Amino acid sequence: MITVLRLGHRHERDHRISTHCGLVARALGANKIIYSGERDEKLLDSINNVTTNWGGPFQCSYESNWKKVIRNFRGTRVHLTMYGIPMQKEMRKIRTSRNLLVIIGGEKVPGEVYRMADYNVAVANQPHSEVAALAVFMHDLQRGKELEKRFTKSKLRIIPSKDYKNVVSTKK
Amino acid sequence: MITVLRLGHRHERDHRISTHCGLVARALGANKIIYSGERDEKLLDSINNVTTNWGGPFQCSYESNWKKVIRNFRGTRVHLTMYGIPMQKEMRKIRTSRNLLVIIGGEKVPGEVYRMADYNVAVANQPHSEVAALAVFMHDLQRGKELEKRFTKSKLRIIPSKDYKNVVSTKK
Repeated sequence: MITVLRLGHRHERDHRISTHCGLVARALGANKIIYSGERDEKLLDSINNVTTNWGGPFQCSYESNWKKVIRNFRGTRVHLTMYGIPMQKEMRKIRTSRNLLVIIGGEKVPGEVYRMADYNVAVANQPHSEVAALAVFMHDLQRGKELEKRFTKSKLRIIPSKDYKNVVSTKK
Repeated sequence: MITVLRLGHRHERDHRISTHCGLVARALGANKIIYSGERDEKLLDSINNVTTNWGGPFQCSYESNWKKVIRNFRGTRVHLTMYGIPMQKEMRKIRTSRNLLVIIGGEKVPGEVYRMADYNVAVANQPHSEVAALAVFMHDLQRGKELEKRFTKSKLRIIPSKDYKNVVSTKK
């Protein structure tokens, strides 16, 4: 089980980045994303529409009280931050956990997050992107197996092609 | 040598996503990003500022004629697209190339890109994010070695920490 917690969403400014976080969580093997920060129904709708069309299972929800989410989580809490210990040094230990909460921040992450997390790890100690950090973490954690994941109840499916777009409808 | 080509940038709508593309390119081992689409000096400035502060070498430029960039490139052109052949099936061959152009699209990628690329590969045949696709591709291509990359001439550097932010100034 992998749950992603996205902190500090801001309606206007973060809409696309937060959407990308949700789509990456779904596409790369998480079971669920929880958004915190400003409530944004359109954001939840976007993610749920993708799940309806492209398959699941994948859950998406909003929770204003992110502290409660972290505190009540039964499993290992991994906070992705450019200030943390390089991911590659902690991954072996992290992989032993069956139930993971992967926390990704917004612009300013409160100090409490660092203290509440079991691991603060960095996907490179360089400024880049929470979308990228989440993606690389998911890929490394699952050793690439997430790329073979099958989704169920999809309406659309891609037939991989060398040189053109081939999308088929799987609806009956 | 790894060059990233970001297609179809739109000033307003794509500013943050395109910034993330550039930061990911730099942080995860590319030597250069070329933006196409709408010219956006602020975007180039953002990326160059990060390189000034956090180190390089990393180049960043704008080119309106993306066809020329792809056509004149001497090396292997890899287009990342959700419609392509799964990355894991092509990576061994791609890794044999010394000079790579990694093409990432915007909202609508012209059919010509598919035909001009040597490889059209997918980081999961699912809708997600060009930022994430670029990041996972770079990580897989370099087998995680990009996370050990040292940057030169930086003003700032992070001392990795288990539980707090530790940034040091490396300026004399």
